[in-house]
Amino acid sequence: MSHQKSQTITFESISPAEFFYRNRQMAGFGNPTQAVYSTVRELVENSLDSCEDAASLPRIEIDIQDDTSDNIIIKVFDNGCGVPSDEIPNAFGRVLYGSKYSQRQKRGTFGLGVTMAILYGQITTDSPLIVHSKTPDSQGMLYQLLVDVENNEPIVERSEELQRSENGTTVTVTIKGDLKRAYDRLMDYLKLSVISTPHARISLTIGDNVVNHFGRFSNTIPAPVIASLPHPRAADLEMLRRLTQKNSSKTLHDFLCDSFQRIGPKTTARFLRFMNMNPHQIVGEMTREDLTKLGTSLRSYDGFEKPDSGCLSPIGKQEFVRSVASQFNTTLTHYSVRGPSEWQGNPFVIEAVLATGDDFPRSDTPSLFRFANRVPLLYDSSDDILTRVMKRTRWARYNLHTAVPVALFVHVCSTRIPFKAAGKQSIASVPEIENEAQLLFKELGRKLSKMTTKVQASAREIKKMREFSKSFRQIVRFSASLAELENVPSTENLVQALFEVDTDA
Amino acid sequence: MSHQKSQTITFESISPAEFFYRNRQMAGFGNPTQAVYSTVRELVENSLDSCEDAASLPRIEIDIQDDTSDNIIIKVFDNGCGVPSDEIPNAFGRVLYGSKYSQRQKRGTFGLGVTMAILYGQITTDSPLIVHSKTPDSQGMLYQLLVDVENNEPIVERSEELQRSENGTTVTVTIKGDLKRAYDRLMDYLKLSVISTPHARISLTIGDNVVNHFGRFSNTIPAPVIASLPHPRAADLEMLRRLTQKNSSKTLHDFLCDSFQRIGPKTTARFLRFMNMNPHQIVGEMTREDLTKLGTSLRSYDGFEKPDSGCLSPIGKQEFVRSVASQFNTTLTHYSVRGPSEWQGNPFVIEAVLATGDDFPRSDTPSLFRFANRVPLLYDSSDDILTRVMKRTRWARYNLHTAVPVALFVHVCSTRIPFKAAGKQSIASVPEIENEAQLLFKELGRKLSKMTTKVQASAREIKKMREFSKSFRQIVRFSASLAELENVPSTENLVQALFEVDTDA
Repeated sequence: MSHQKSQTITFESISPAEFFYRNRQMAGFGNPTQAVYSTVRELVENSLDSCEDAASLPRIEIDIQDDTSDNIIIKVFDNGCGVPSDEIPNAFGRVLYGSKYSQRQKRGTFGLGVTMAILYGQITTDSPLIVHSKTPDSQGMLYQLLVDVENNEPIVERSEELQRSENGTTVTVTIKGDLKRAYDRLMDYLKLSVISTPHARISLTIGDNVVNHFGRFSNTIPAPVIASLPHPRAADLEMLRRLTQKNSSKTLHDFLCDSFQRIGPKTTARFLRFMNMNPHQIVGEMTREDLTKLGTSLRSYDGFEKPDSGCLSPIGKQEFVRSVASQFNTTLTHYSVRGPSEWQGNPFVIEAVLATGDDFPRSDTPSLFRFANRVPLLYDSSDDILTRVMKRTRWARYNLHTAVPVALFVHVCSTRIPFKAAGKQSIASVPEIENEAQLLFKELGRKLSKMTTKVQASAREIKKMREFSKSFRQIVRFSASLAELENVPSTENLVQALFEVDTDA
Repeated sequence: MSHQKSQTITFESISPAEFFYRNRQMAGFGNPTQAVYSTVRELVENSLDSCEDAASLPRIEIDIQDDTSDNIIIKVFDNGCGVPSDEIPNAFGRVLYGSKYSQRQKRGTFGLGVTMAILYGQITTDSPLIVHSKTPDSQGMLYQLLVDVENNEPIVERSEELQRSENGTTVTVTIKGDLKRAYDRLMDYLKLSVISTPHARISLTIGDNVVNHFGRFSNTIPAPVIASLPHPRAADLEMLRRLTQKNSSKTLHDFLCDSFQRIGPKTTARFLRFMNMNPHQIVGEMTREDLTKLGTSLRSYDGFEKPDSGCLSPIGKQEFVRSVASQFNTTLTHYSVRGPSEWQGNPFVIEAVLATGDDFPRSDTPSLFRFANRVPLLYDSSDDILTRVMKRTRWARYNLHTAVPVALFVHVCSTRIPFKAAGKQSIASVPEIENEAQLLFKELGRKLSKMTTKVQASAREIKKMREFSKSFRQIVRFSASLAELENVPSTENLVQALFEVDTDA
């Protein structure tokens, strides 16, 4: 047994910007390929969120230029609501700062992505971010920004008023990246983005003249999502402590009615009676034990209604089916939806389109396309909960075999998606989401089974029709010659009317 | 086309504690099962790091108690170096604060894990953390702590001097958790922990009397890891900006020699000549363009030596093979190592033990056991780079088939592991690590091929020996009867001497 000298240990604190600078792979900026993809993705998602806030039909223009030294200049224009001038430095140049923290469905969630793109540009090319934004209250402001990583603060290099003709934001970042290797993912991402946001129109220009257009498949702007109060089942002790501090003079009864959704005077009274708690108790005077008891009770009580889904924006049957069919050659499609349900008090809906068609590979499981809060997820599929449930589903039972090319488009939307990492690529295992996905996939499986049976049945019908039609034509020809007619009458319409084949899904 | 009213948008900032409180699944605290596992894991890793700093043979005692209301009390004792009294509140009660940020291999990396355990305890059971620690400079201090999540600051509920007989730390947290479902993972984790830290002894007590002991397989304390300067290839523009600010009065030549590893006066002179840069340039006077040029040059220059590996602590051939063989029934083992190499300037070593033995399942690929900086990784294996390289390796070429049960224990150590998420469960795709893993696995494959050929050869030898020995005994018996001997002489030794079978790997 040997003894060695121990080391001096120094303690220090790092800023969240420093944390993500050091661990950029966690936020999707691990290598030059991913960096191109993530930069475009984060900017596009910000733009789409901003258009939802403006209630405008999104028009996003992406422009990518390679310069001589491998620097890639990525510029994204939108017609969203714009960012107020005094918020621009923090909104873009500070990690964990943003407008995404309210209790409603948003693509962005962390106030992290765009700042990561700036940070990545700054450390690889030393180029600042350029933002040009106009809100209804301004003529337009231009900012040139860097990030002070050690202090998680924006550095404003330049700011000036600059006219912009319409509301919205244009962001330009310069990063070192591998555009060639990122290209396919980028195209997939945009192709799928307009499936989950069918009312968006996105254009992509690379270099001088390559322009691709994606969407728009719908002119209907979805109903705006409304931020909601938390559901009582979301009440952990941290939340309760904050809420009771803010409402310290209220009675327990009023506190519950005012602070949570889905709990009116009647439910509150019933809940408090059941829990044997005093409705007139002033919440500021509750002991820690009282709060703990209240929290446990709120989380376990059965009598609350399902969470409000006004804070969610599922794609919806008509739009989802239409956008899938617009983007891919589909033969049959079927839509199913489950929810709103809740996980730890966060409402969620899960909806899916099952489609058959020659665009999809033949396999013994469907090709899976994952979406979370209207954002397509392309990386890290293997450990995603949707992939795992999909693999666990016994598709063979539902007549799925390699002869039928099937794809499954699944969209989970929630006020909070349990992403496994800040790069937002895969969804963690949450029992509630897992169960709902399982039930949804089974439902779609049964539908698939029916659809394929129907297709097989109609194939049999067509065969029968062909055979009958052959003999029928002979009979008609024979009768015609007997009747000494010059032209043999057509049998087409008659046969079709007799054997009308139903191919509707 | 419809127009709807736009929403009011409020911007806000959240603390890193708040970020991880909201996204606890990213740090490994997504559900009650994971929470038990992660709490134990984070505490044990902290303890092991602390023992390395103290250069003591680690003795870790874990005690887990279920109380009546599903609360689980987890207490971890170590004989490490202790935490200085004035650092205890921040070290335990603040996210992104710690002693792990220096350029050397550590289990902990983020200053996050233990604070997450406290946070989780606090929001699920409202119980504070209790820390009792003694350093060589103190008699012992006891703290009772909570986390102020909104401000990312510790709340000290109680602190008092309390005698502790030896240096080290004891931490107690109370969380809501699912011990039953976490149990198997926990046991696997501890079983594997003493493979990667063979000089540690860990005991686990659950309830009153269940005690399990893990290790110790070695009494040798590994050489201490020494924090190193960054490698020139790690110099991104952020790092250069900070370093030049700190050393603004130095000449470029001296700045390079003093700030980076593996770059003495000769290499520096050669590099600057090659890059056509002035060695007498004062770094404080360099323009941003100069810095950008310097950074690009440092990252792309071929002439630097490989990074220093004194900051790394691989397990080593003898210890790794012995600990694998102590924990599993192995027939044959082989060790290989590659490195030190570097990814983005971070040195890394990758080492592995390939073992055959009946403890492992029979499959057409080896069972994979992953380790990063001496920590076993048990979750999220599918998207891990090691799993992907393992699956890509054509094991059939190396004679691996379902008749041979093979396991592969792989350890990556680095000053920075590119974890995919803060929960530290899987390693992201980094081309340099990917390449080295690929070469390592191929090398082990070739060795496996030789080993199995040898085993097959020796199986043939044994068969031949048995046949020969049979006839030989008959001859001896016949000769004995001819010679009219009463006892037939034994042929065993003779046969064995003739057919000595080499089964060494």
